[in-house]
Amino acid sequence: MNWERWLSEASKSAKASDIREILKLTTRSDMISLAGGLPDPTLFPVAEYATAMQRVMEQNGPEALQYSTTEGLNELRVELVKELERDGIACPEGIENIILTTGSQQALQLLGIMLIDPGDTVLVEAPSYLGAFQAFGLRSPRYETIEMDANGLKIEALEAKLAQLKHEGRHPKFLYTVPTFQNPAGVTLSLERRKALVELAERENFLIIEDDPYGRLRFRGEPLPSLKSLDQNGRVILLRTFSKTLAPGLRTGYVVGPPRPLRRLVILKQAADLCSPAITQFIILEMLKAGAMERYVQQVIEVYRHKEEVMATALKTYLGNSSVRWNEPDGGMFFWVTLPEKLDVSPLLNEAIEAGVAYVKGTAFYSDGTSGSNCLRLNFSQPSPAQIETGISRLAAIIENRLKIS
Amino acid sequence: MNWERWLSEASKSAKASDIREILKLTTRSDMISLAGGLPDPTLFPVAEYATAMQRVMEQNGPEALQYSTTEGLNELRVELVKELERDGIACPEGIENIILTTGSQQALQLLGIMLIDPGDTVLVEAPSYLGAFQAFGLRSPRYETIEMDANGLKIEALEAKLAQLKHEGRHPKFLYTVPTFQNPAGVTLSLERRKALVELAERENFLIIEDDPYGRLRFRGEPLPSLKSLDQNGRVILLRTFSKTLAPGLRTGYVVGPPRPLRRLVILKQAADLCSPAITQFIILEMLKAGAMERYVQQVIEVYRHKEEVMATALKTYLGNSSVRWNEPDGGMFFWVTLPEKLDVSPLLNEAIEAGVAYVKGTAFYSDGTSGSNCLRLNFSQPSPAQIETGISRLAAIIENRLKIS
Repeated sequence: MNWERWLSEASKSAKASDIREILKLTTRSDMISLAGGLPDPTLFPVAEYATAMQRVMEQNGPEALQYSTTEGLNELRVELVKELERDGIACPEGIENIILTTGSQQALQLLGIMLIDPGDTVLVEAPSYLGAFQAFGLRSPRYETIEMDANGLKIEALEAKLAQLKHEGRHPKFLYTVPTFQNPAGVTLSLERRKALVELAERENFLIIEDDPYGRLRFRGEPLPSLKSLDQNGRVILLRTFSKTLAPGLRTGYVVGPPRPLRRLVILKQAADLCSPAITQFIILEMLKAGAMERYVQQVIEVYRHKEEVMATALKTYLGNSSVRWNEPDGGMFFWVTLPEKLDVSPLLNEAIEAGVAYVKGTAFYSDGTSGSNCLRLNFSQPSPAQIETGISRLAAIIENRLKIS
Repeated sequence: MNWERWLSEASKSAKASDIREILKLTTRSDMISLAGGLPDPTLFPVAEYATAMQRVMEQNGPEALQYSTTEGLNELRVELVKELERDGIACPEGIENIILTTGSQQALQLLGIMLIDPGDTVLVEAPSYLGAFQAFGLRSPRYETIEMDANGLKIEALEAKLAQLKHEGRHPKFLYTVPTFQNPAGVTLSLERRKALVELAERENFLIIEDDPYGRLRFRGEPLPSLKSLDQNGRVILLRTFSKTLAPGLRTGYVVGPPRPLRRLVILKQAADLCSPAITQFIILEMLKAGAMERYVQQVIEVYRHKEEVMATALKTYLGNSSVRWNEPDGGMFFWVTLPEKLDVSPLLNEAIEAGVAYVKGTAFYSDGTSGSNCLRLNFSQPSPAQIETGISRLAAIIENRLKIS
């Protein structure tokens, strides 16, 4: 049977991500993967989870195994209100400002359904998180990209883009941004720009979706206020997740925003999965109460700081004298490496995989699929320090070789 | 800020389900809820779950806490292939015939995205599962309803509908059906009709989405083959779930079908949540290996048989001499009650809630929102036998009173 004939137009254009394909290759035992965006699994506090699970079964067994509310567990939402307020993010309507989702990815999918009509203009950073492209892509938006530098999104570039759009009679619905330790670029939006961005959104009347999976993973410098904390009028929708501060396998994220759009989001979530697993929400609540999340985050920060330094040193050692450039992230999980402009990393990837090292091509992070062809993303959270060192040396040899040829 | 202006057209029309609103009322301590569709939480084998969780943390801790594949845990898919083949459902491509989802509800949402373009014709039973309407509704299909009787979907009615559609130049994409212990009608499609339905789908070239959450919960009569087991050409997509055979809080269902559409579904699932929680999939695997699911299902069947008998007896006792009619289900969780045609159950519901008993209005299960106004759905899995008895007596008093007035 020809299955193509049954597919909807929207689903025909959906593509598997490059990362997915690369991750399959990285199961090879000799392969060093700098490709993924996974936490270091050796750091998960397995024994603490075991204890938390026992407590959940003892105290809330039947409830944890039953259907729960679509908004998520109220006791957990109460804890999150406290945590947000510690971070300077007001929740004037209490738990009504929070809903839990099956990872931030679900929040992205539901926000795409909620906000995007086909052809709507959506602003994204260049480069941007590819999972957002996948989630929004089903709604066929028209992307407009905004340039970044070492201090994140360039406000002037955004202003110019908005003027251009106005001239074309187009009004953007929202800007999607990862302002802190951006995926993939590793950069962080400066305080000055944060303020300017929220003001600009207010003046030019667009929404901001602030995706903040990495904010807690800062190993250098001072924390910056989130865009949401600078937002006076409920114009910013903030996404946070436990994937990096506890464990991705729990698939639990949360959306922070005004009650009205969140109530709409809950209806869409009900259609998507009725509710997220109650059991994982109870486990998270136990981990929070036991202080296990704070302990874990502190340990992660120490280990990632070291791994970042190992990768920075290896890059300097092996590519310091070349024309290759990269950022130095203050947190998060990624380096973004830029090769000379005419060098396409796509054939390079095949060579790299043969040599036993994997990365993600820059083009994966652009909506047009062609920009960023001379860039690549490197992850330092998952590989060991020794693997990072070896991986970068392998990669550098291939790059150096290409640079000589070209 | 006026949030309405930001909403997409599709999301503006999304509505919260009636059940959701009723479930909020049922938290009143004196309320007997016959409204939900929840398993009896007192039967969950909490101690066995606690043991399973300990084993998962001991054996697979880091893996259970990490991101996993979008398709779901391979070891679990292997077990499911065996289970399906025991049930006469061939998996010629092995685990490639199965993907795991965050409950069957996610499968419905993703199938809606995969198959429905706005205006596409979708065939549904009258009445039908309201969660399917919510999931498909985001894609704005045009529903066509097919009448049922005590033996399920009427094949003649379907044939007549297909002829009418052909006359109108419309071709249905798929039929959505719950053939066994249907929600809400409680009826089961006869063997003869199962064969006829699959043949008809082949001849008239439409797909079948077979939703089977309740098939294992049979307390009377002989099991019938699933539509999928009668399907020769990969025309049936089967949805099964652990929500009723283990626990809904695990939010784990699975889709069975040919590899081609499933690969497409995986891409859509990746955009929706990257992957389902690994931890719940590992727990399920342990429960299966320990034989805990089979033990639980056997116990559930015994208890639900008793509860069904209590409800049947109470209905006979309190409404046996009235013009009210109902089915007698052989499994599952629901009775479908039909009042005289002109009697609207909507004002009745307010009276019932005041008297301390809740049910779901029949209109919730029709795409037009108006049919079924003289019908209601009663659940017997969640309330205790004593609550069922009292609940039906309260309800009967209100109905009898109305019948006298009208």
